[in-house]
Amino acid sequence: MSKISPEAAQLHNQSIIIDGLNISRWSDEEVYRHLREGGITAINASVAVWEGTKATLQNIGRFYRDFETYGQYIRPVTTVADIHAAKKEGKTGVILGFQNSSPIEEDLDLVEVFYKLGVRVIQITYNDLNFVGAGCYERQDIGLSQFGMDLVREMDRLGMIVDLSHVGYKTTMDAIEASRNPVWFSHANPMALKKHVRNKTDEQVQALVKKGGVVGVNIFPPFLQREYEATLDDVIDVFEYWLKIAGEDHVSVGLDFTENQSEEWFHWLMSGKRKDPVYPLELPLRLPQGITRADEMPNLTEGLLKRGLSENVVRKIMGENVLRLLQQVWGA
Amino acid sequence: MSKISPEAAQLHNQSIIIDGLNISRWSDEEVYRHLREGGITAINASVAVWEGTKATLQNIGRFYRDFETYGQYIRPVTTVADIHAAKKEGKTGVILGFQNSSPIEEDLDLVEVFYKLGVRVIQITYNDLNFVGAGCYERQDIGLSQFGMDLVREMDRLGMIVDLSHVGYKTTMDAIEASRNPVWFSHANPMALKKHVRNKTDEQVQALVKKGGVVGVNIFPPFLQREYEATLDDVIDVFEYWLKIAGEDHVSVGLDFTENQSEEWFHWLMSGKRKDPVYPLELPLRLPQGITRADEMPNLTEGLLKRGLSENVVRKIMGENVLRLLQQVWGA
Repeated sequence: MSKISPEAAQLHNQSIIIDGLNISRWSDEEVYRHLREGGITAINASVAVWEGTKATLQNIGRFYRDFETYGQYIRPVTTVADIHAAKKEGKTGVILGFQNSSPIEEDLDLVEVFYKLGVRVIQITYNDLNFVGAGCYERQDIGLSQFGMDLVREMDRLGMIVDLSHVGYKTTMDAIEASRNPVWFSHANPMALKKHVRNKTDEQVQALVKKGGVVGVNIFPPFLQREYEATLDDVIDVFEYWLKIAGEDHVSVGLDFTENQSEEWFHWLMSGKRKDPVYPLELPLRLPQGITRADEMPNLTEGLLKRGLSENVVRKIMGENVLRLLQQVWGA
Repeated sequence: MSKISPEAAQLHNQSIIIDGLNISRWSDEEVYRHLREGGITAINASVAVWEGTKATLQNIGRFYRDFETYGQYIRPVTTVADIHAAKKEGKTGVILGFQNSSPIEEDLDLVEVFYKLGVRVIQITYNDLNFVGAGCYERQDIGLSQFGMDLVREMDRLGMIVDLSHVGYKTTMDAIEASRNPVWFSHANPMALKKHVRNKTDEQVQALVKKGGVVGVNIFPPFLQREYEATLDDVIDVFEYWLKIAGEDHVSVGLDFTENQSEEWFHWLMSGKRKDPVYPLELPLRLPQGITRADEMPNLTEGLLKRGLSENVVRKIMGENVLRLLQQVWGA
């Protein structure tokens, strides 16, 4: 746990704190305890990256079990009211999210099936090409497929958030246009600060903002200018940059924590069905000093305040902007 | 539609009418229309027989679509209140049920997953041996496996009905004993009237009744004394027999309609993974005259009245006994 100024601590404790992307090792008490110690109100918890239907159901089923076993730390979230309840109960609300549309395999009817199971966010591609469109590491970029158009429409109908963080350029632009609802770059940094195919251009963020969407700042080192040398200060730079481009109502937090994950898991994450990872990763991962685990979340609130942002803007960034997005898309 | 006496029609229209087993061709307007024309308040609709996880999800997803497309006829049921709502709305409530535990494949966590998707009844084996126990057509009979014990406990915990109709003798007796809740023979006829391995002995029904369970009368010809020559009168005989053995609080209706299913489908149903069907079936199926389709359901009410049963007992058989069972197990 972090030691911060009483002012920052008070603001943090009184605010809704949402981390828009967490892909840590689930069913792990330490992971859940850190979420609580970090005063995090809700996370978008990845329950699928490369998994197909069955394995995703197993991941979801295990979370149901975790909601019982680790009920002192976490609770399920499928509505905005659930997030307020989590705040009140002093628990971390878990939004079940996909980082890929692989769980629906090739069946549009499964979107509602997963919705019924509590899934509320789908990143429509992950790194590679799938039946929906291209991921950001794909050799060729294309727009949304016909199935992809149908998927976005189905998600609109149900009220699920379209996440475009790992999505290829054209597919991203197509999906922003195709979606009736605002969309989310849950964890995506500026291309302007670090040229990396996983980062987003100003133009993309402006298109996102025009539709009412939100962009979340990521701390995964390869997407930061100083990579593995970056500290909390560099992360605050990213917030400042997105604030300049997107405005105070459209920036959020999506740290991409991978707590307690193994080297083997990282290899699987970075490779998927490929022979080799999309880029080499230095392991164990060295995250920016000051913000290396969920229990250091208060440092982020303090860092933003210290940089001179108003309490009002910090509250928006730390949770309220995402809360508004969820309200708009989920409808409740 | 059937023409019956005004007294029988009035009783039928005022009563909760539940058919404990229907495995007709779904997504078929005629099938749903017949349910309405038959004044049926709710059915236990099979969405899995041999299917594994993915195919079952697809069947469930298609039902969600049907609830929209055919919303004038049907509505989902996951609680007893939903059944009362169906009655009020003049729709047929659909309870999603499995005739096998194949959809959970080998993962206990998937039981809650399917519960969340609305499934409320699981027949734990279908005809053959599976990882839970033996079906009634299996060469060898055994009791519940360890996994089967765990499955029954998990269903108890969640509040799902254990259906034992197609289940082997020992597995049936074990499950009655293992379950904390009353169990269901949703569609099972007396061995005493027709010696058939799919029928149940008096001893089994007595054990079921002792735990508060209910046994439902079936019209599938091979399980009736006069088989393909049977009429509604023979079916009423079965009700009378079970009434004698189980008492008026423990008998229900489980007709096993297979409306609009193809010959190919029957072959699949009767064979599963086997090379040959469990017994030869005469197709097209000739059901007992007077009760061949869901829209002839009022004939059953009339037939029971004509046989001299009181209105009170007829109401219990036609729906109230199952309603009580659902209330006890579902808890709402």
